[in-house]
Amino acid sequence: MSEHRSTAAAPLSGLRIVEISSFVAAPLAGMTLAQLGADVIRVDPVGGAADRNRWPLTEQGASIYWAGLNKGKRSFVADLRSPQGQELVARLITGSGPQGGILLTNTTGREWQGYDALARTRPDLIHLEITGRGDGSTGVDYTVNAATGFPLVTGPPDHAGPINHVVPVWDIACGLYAALAVTAAVRRREATGAGSRLAIPLENVALATASNLGFLGEAQLNGTGRPRVGNALYGSYGQDFTSADGVYFMLVTLTPRHFRDLVSATGTTEVVAALATALDADFTDEGTRYKHRDVLTALFAGWFRDHTADEISAALSGTSILWERYRSFDELATDPQVTANPLFTDVPQPGVGAYRAAGAPISVDGTYQPARIAPRLGEHTDAVLREELGLTDDDIARLRDTAACATDSPKRTNP
Amino acid sequence: MSEHRSTAAAPLSGLRIVEISSFVAAPLAGMTLAQLGADVIRVDPVGGAADRNRWPLTEQGASIYWAGLNKGKRSFVADLRSPQGQELVARLITGSGPQGGILLTNTTGREWQGYDALARTRPDLIHLEITGRGDGSTGVDYTVNAATGFPLVTGPPDHAGPINHVVPVWDIACGLYAALAVTAAVRRREATGAGSRLAIPLENVALATASNLGFLGEAQLNGTGRPRVGNALYGSYGQDFTSADGVYFMLVTLTPRHFRDLVSATGTTEVVAALATALDADFTDEGTRYKHRDVLTALFAGWFRDHTADEISAALSGTSILWERYRSFDELATDPQVTANPLFTDVPQPGVGAYRAAGAPISVDGTYQPARIAPRLGEHTDAVLREELGLTDDDIARLRDTAACATDSPKRTNP
Repeated sequence: MSEHRSTAAAPLSGLRIVEISSFVAAPLAGMTLAQLGADVIRVDPVGGAADRNRWPLTEQGASIYWAGLNKGKRSFVADLRSPQGQELVARLITGSGPQGGILLTNTTGREWQGYDALARTRPDLIHLEITGRGDGSTGVDYTVNAATGFPLVTGPPDHAGPINHVVPVWDIACGLYAALAVTAAVRRREATGAGSRLAIPLENVALATASNLGFLGEAQLNGTGRPRVGNALYGSYGQDFTSADGVYFMLVTLTPRHFRDLVSATGTTEVVAALATALDADFTDEGTRYKHRDVLTALFAGWFRDHTADEISAALSGTSILWERYRSFDELATDPQVTANPLFTDVPQPGVGAYRAAGAPISVDGTYQPARIAPRLGEHTDAVLREELGLTDDDIARLRDTAACATDSPKRTNP
Repeated sequence: MSEHRSTAAAPLSGLRIVEISSFVAAPLAGMTLAQLGADVIRVDPVGGAADRNRWPLTEQGASIYWAGLNKGKRSFVADLRSPQGQELVARLITGSGPQGGILLTNTTGREWQGYDALARTRPDLIHLEITGRGDGSTGVDYTVNAATGFPLVTGPPDHAGPINHVVPVWDIACGLYAALAVTAAVRRREATGAGSRLAIPLENVALATASNLGFLGEAQLNGTGRPRVGNALYGSYGQDFTSADGVYFMLVTLTPRHFRDLVSATGTTEVVAALATALDADFTDEGTRYKHRDVLTALFAGWFRDHTADEISAALSGTSILWERYRSFDELATDPQVTANPLFTDVPQPGVGAYRAAGAPISVDGTYQPARIAPRLGEHTDAVLREELGLTDDDIARLRDTAACATDSPKRTNP
């Protein structure tokens, strides 16, 4: 048993999942399943997939990104263009008893790893493909996002062009939907013996989310979509402010109590009351607070301009207001609240160095599972050939001669 | 059996989940579990939770948002402040045989619905709480996001302040992690009989994501975090462009082939080759394309400025380049590609009207489950009291007299 194997207590303990993947969505899905206890084997072509050297890199050129999205997996490298390599991987997918037979992939269009070919060997196969668009055409997070409507309503109201998100929302959501779909399919297979042919298009994750949150319904039902409202919270009162010493704050007031506390903290009780009377506005109604947000913001902003960040933090603490200081990634990486968060484990990541890595953001009985390291590319090729495919050392030596499998990348250095 | 019950073929068929929730994360988790076949009963206080009238609203004042996030659930309304109401809901959570005993909630701090109180009655309870921050303090998507680092690197490089996202990324990811954690815990309970006490802080979902994608590791390992790079794709070549007729396009080139096609499509083969020689730059390397992105963008932008959106679309189609036109929500809501997408179902939503609603973005055997309507508030109170708690019509009448339960909101109109 490898150290990467699941423990008996973990919810997905025993499952054996093969992942043929690259970039964010499918690797995140596989990593999340591994965090829940599954044995996940990421299969890469010789030299690694197209995400092998994705930025951010360390100064020595190792991919921090790759290390972050492949934690706790085993790595198997094969020549995916050769019939022999394909046959080995197909055997790996369809094998390993009742808890195997699960493929998670975002590389589509290859017949040998398609549902039909693999389900002939293993009718109870669980096969999940992540695709770009619903019609089968290609797409990645940043192109899918362009078509969602969100970039044209992000940013300052007077800004003209699109503003892309930085966090790849659709990849993240797609990866989590994929992990969920596989887990639910496993539950069904364990109850009924039935396999599943599943597909999740990135585009449809984005469209479903835009629909679930009302963005599409609003445009369809009211004839006009969401406007660009800057950093304001749509439909209620939330806004960013700047302190006397130039620190940015975000405040959200969802309930009448939150709003009363904000009015009180900023010393604007009388002027807001006078405004309510003058405008005949009931500020206990969140829509009314939203409609009058600009004048309210102008009233509150003076108090923020007159106080330092520390004074503001002290005044807001203990109120019901939802608030936060904006922090940079640099501040975040050194903030004691973050470095002491039990979500993180210091891991000695080969090639990358020692760094703080996150486990799954799910606490069980009040504790988080420690983060694990990502494998070196091809690190488990021999072990998988031996333990999962039953090959002998002689078989493995012959495979290496034909270059069908590799324990490491001969084309690129893998420190 | 109600029309909201699961079908036998669905992967989470048979499960009975109680959701005490509001806003996005917990309702999305419950809805997603319902889309996979679970019977999900959303419990609300009399009059509805704080998200009852959340924007966007129809012109008649019904919440499109609430309808979007509660599709396919049953609705049970009780006076959650009265001991009698609490006792009924506790019985509902802990009852319904081996497939019941599951609570999903984002309302914390109430002893009667805490793990300890409920697990005394039902040791195999699966109890999942969504909280704001890891230390138990409050937080919502927009405040959590302020502290992640993302708003300070979103938007144009010359912009000074924070730019908030519009799609509540952390709520979405948290809801999907929650649906996954419940499903995995069900699999464990079905195998071992053990329950689970689970918690997911919104803050830790954000921190784990920032870590998984390398944003935190980059700041820690390299001593400096991600810069603000506008709409450029970090570490590779991707950029937005504007056509002669003012249409915005997003293009992404991840591989040397993508980039070659972009150079070819824009008629810049000779000038890009001369540039590569002059700069001693190898544009087959994605990091090199990124470093020289501004000069490359300046070269390509001329071609976009000289062509209409239709000409550009025609020229890019059939190439390997990943590209998309930016669309507004209004364009999205009427685009035939969207309205014909089998992800959507026209549903007659009471109060809201007929509109296009999305099902889960997971196709099974090539088809999507149709979207279902959201319940009216309290619609299933009587049915749940009768079917799930075994009460008689007389019992129900007595409960209504004490106002412990309600079939609908007496405080607000619910059209």
